[in-house]
Amino acid sequence: MDEITTQPAATPPDPVLAAINFDANGLVAAIAQQHDTGEVLMMAWMNAEAVRETLATGRVCYFSRSRGRLWRKGETSGQVQHLRELRVDCDGDTLLLLVHQDGVACHTGRRNCFFRSARDGGLVEIAAPVVSPETLYGHTHG
Amino acid sequence: MDEITTQPAATPPDPVLAAINFDANGLVAAIAQQHDTGEVLMMAWMNAEAVRETLATGRVCYFSRSRGRLWRKGETSGQVQHLRELRVDCDGDTLLLLVHQDGVACHTGRRNCFFRSARDGGLVEIAAPVVSPETLYGHTHG
Repeated sequence: MDEITTQPAATPPDPVLAAINFDANGLVAAIAQQHDTGEVLMMAWMNAEAVRETLATGRVCYFSRSRGRLWRKGETSGQVQHLRELRVDCDGDTLLLLVHQDGVACHTGRRNCFFRSARDGGLVEIAAPVVSPETLYGHTHG
Repeated sequence: MDEITTQPAATPPDPVLAAINFDANGLVAAIAQQHDTGEVLMMAWMNAEAVRETLATGRVCYFSRSRGRLWRKGETSGQVQHLRELRVDCDGDTLLLLVHQDGVACHTGRRNCFFRSARDGGLVEIAAPVVSPETLYGHTHG
C-alpha cells in the first residue's frame, strides 16, 4: 500500500510576483513616477523581496546593485517614496511605480534624475539641485 | 630621428554618448514618455547606434534584445515614436525619451504597456486594447 503523506497546504502563488519576469540576476527594472504630476523621477531595480516589501509596507524598497542589498529609498536621506500604485508591463520586465516623493528623488539633490538634456549636439543641465547632497547625506555621502 | 606621422584629426567624442554608461551588453534602458500628457508608454533598450540614429533622425530607434538588431519603433506596426527630447539620468544608465507616440505604444494594442495594476493582492487589467494586434501586425505578428 502506498504511503499517503499529508502535504502542507501550498501557499498560493503571489499573482504580482508571478507576472514579473525577473532577469538572470533576479531583478526587474522599476520606474518611479510622481503620481499626480506625471514627473518621471528615477529608474532603479527590485528583486522579489523588494517588490514584496514595497507592496506590504507602501514604502518603496529597491535592490541596490552597487551595495548588493535592499535599499529602502530614503533610509539615509529621508527622501521616502510612498507607493500609490504598482503596475506591471506587458512582458513583465518593467514595473511602473506611481509614488508620492518626499523631497527629492535624486542623490544630487535634484527633484528627478533626468536633469541632462541632449540639445544642439551637446548635453545641457536643465535643473539645479534644490537641496545640497551634504544636507541629504551629511558626511557619509555614498 | 623620430618618425613624425600625420594623425587624422580625432573625431570629437559625442557628449551624449560619452555620458551614457552602457551595460556589459552595450545597452542602456530607455523610458518613453508622451511629452505633453506625461503618460509613461514603455521601457526598452538602446545601444550606441540606436541612440545615434534616434538623435539624428528624430524617430525613436531601439535595440531589440530578442531579435538582436535595431528596432525602429513602428517599422511593422506604423506606431512611430517621434522624439521631442532625450534626457540622461544622473549616473548615465537610463534615458528618458520625451516623444509623440503615433497610435499605441504597446504590441497588445493598448496605448501603453503598463496596463496591469497590483490591487487587493491581485493583478487587475486597467486598460483595454484600442486597436487589435491583428490590425497592427497582420498575419506576421511577432
